[in-house]
Amino acid sequence: MYDVIIIGSGPCGIATAIYLKRYGYNPIIIAKDNGALERATLIENYYGINSISGHDLALSGINQAKNLQIPIMSEEVIDVSIEKNFVVKTSNNSYEAKALMLAMGKSRAKNPLAQKFEGAGVSYCATCDGFFYRKKKIAIVGNGKYMLEELSVLKNLTNDILIFSDGKPLDVEVPYKTITDKIIDFKGDDSGLKEIVTKNDSYEIDGCFMAIGSMQGFSIASHIGIATNNENILVNSDYMTNIKGIFAGGDLIGGLLQVSKAVSDGANAALGIKKYLMSK
Amino acid sequence: MYDVIIIGSGPCGIATAIYLKRYGYNPIIIAKDNGALERATLIENYYGINSISGHDLALSGINQAKNLQIPIMSEEVIDVSIEKNFVVKTSNNSYEAKALMLAMGKSRAKNPLAQKFEGAGVSYCATCDGFFYRKKKIAIVGNGKYMLEELSVLKNLTNDILIFSDGKPLDVEVPYKTITDKIIDFKGDDSGLKEIVTKNDSYEIDGCFMAIGSMQGFSIASHIGIATNNENILVNSDYMTNIKGIFAGGDLIGGLLQVSKAVSDGANAALGIKKYLMSK
Repeated sequence: MYDVIIIGSGPCGIATAIYLKRYGYNPIIIAKDNGALERATLIENYYGINSISGHDLALSGINQAKNLQIPIMSEEVIDVSIEKNFVVKTSNNSYEAKALMLAMGKSRAKNPLAQKFEGAGVSYCATCDGFFYRKKKIAIVGNGKYMLEELSVLKNLTNDILIFSDGKPLDVEVPYKTITDKIIDFKGDDSGLKEIVTKNDSYEIDGCFMAIGSMQGFSIASHIGIATNNENILVNSDYMTNIKGIFAGGDLIGGLLQVSKAVSDGANAALGIKKYLMSK
Repeated sequence: MYDVIIIGSGPCGIATAIYLKRYGYNPIIIAKDNGALERATLIENYYGINSISGHDLALSGINQAKNLQIPIMSEEVIDVSIEKNFVVKTSNNSYEAKALMLAMGKSRAKNPLAQKFEGAGVSYCATCDGFFYRKKKIAIVGNGKYMLEELSVLKNLTNDILIFSDGKPLDVEVPYKTITDKIIDFKGDDSGLKEIVTKNDSYEIDGCFMAIGSMQGFSIASHIGIATNNENILVNSDYMTNIKGIFAGGDLIGGLLQVSKAVSDGANAALGIKKYLMSK
């Protein structure tokens, strides 16, 4: 049992962890990778560091947390649930904590081609929207354990399932037809999504569930009922979402998508979390 | 003529300058010293840097700005005025810009002993409050050119002036009685301040003007009519104060008094300033 589970090991997640640890709390970080920062070639606008690659900055942050004995698990989050406490299920384990901090950044896993059909055939949450596609032809876009988790919900609703790995290697085995070539378009009409077009073929479908990579912020938000606006998670001045005990910061809550802002969010969220834990 | 004058070379001021420069603008930084950061022994909670002295972090920031050819003037700000543009007068020069960014941190020059008489005998702005003490017995607490600037306003109102350097060496010459021993108390009653007590003596006075060190954020705010609340400068979501073209960030606007938050404020304020300059 931890005080706080922080999902994300980028600038916001690490900053939250450092502040919480120094406040005397017991945080754990869960993150599959270092997110968007990892892919930044060169950062030259972060105060105090003249020039550094995204990779090196991400590593510095992780080492800073490790120096404070903060556990960092490189695991894929596949489910988040609210029980007596908050439970985060990964591909390997299950973790429980009194508070939850979402800092996994903006879902770069979103397919921009699919955006126009969001809420009209494209969903990011099988538990939320699966029922609408009962006995229909469903596509799941994904290639790992999170896709399997979404599949485990959807397979009870229909037998007509196609898995699209979208050009990525399939990391898990599935007893369904799998299309591995890259998706080049999502087609439909005013009533919604009708067809997924890949490099080599096209497939008629009724609905499509996006489950690429780990469970993304937006999926978690939909899944547990966190209020969002324009794909940003809404937080109050304590960085708490509409669900008591769940906090968010960094790119996920919108604003300037910059390291400095994410770090500041993390420091501020840690203060909000401290207030919350003290009030319990 | 600059695009933006930034007062303060701490985390917020430097971050604002870096972002503005990279947006293609022409900022200048004016700062007498590196502020509160300079006095922080060790900083271990700033993302990306495991452990650094305040002095070294401040220097890194300044070098970062210098690498971008941003001019940094080590001068004391003694007056700020709003003309066609914004004019900042220092002990050596006068600078003009289309926008002004206040990032000089929280006034550590405030004397906590005097706090209880703020607005009741203690003032931070001769231009604002001098008139109330016409022909009365006035104290000015200060030891440098900013004190002289305040004196130049007050000497037209009364001849009865005492200068308190509050234990500091007097850096300028004044044709008034000067008390150099340390102030140990401000005394008065319900009607306000009555007496300044120093280590070796005590002095009856009617009013006291605080003008230690450079012109502090709070003094500038009072001086030009910037709205404040609980000694924090109020800003909107663009980090603009109630005066168009004047922005503020960092410790001056309150919130978490941390490097990360000041840096984030700087980045956000730069975006606000860019918006403002583009709209002109």
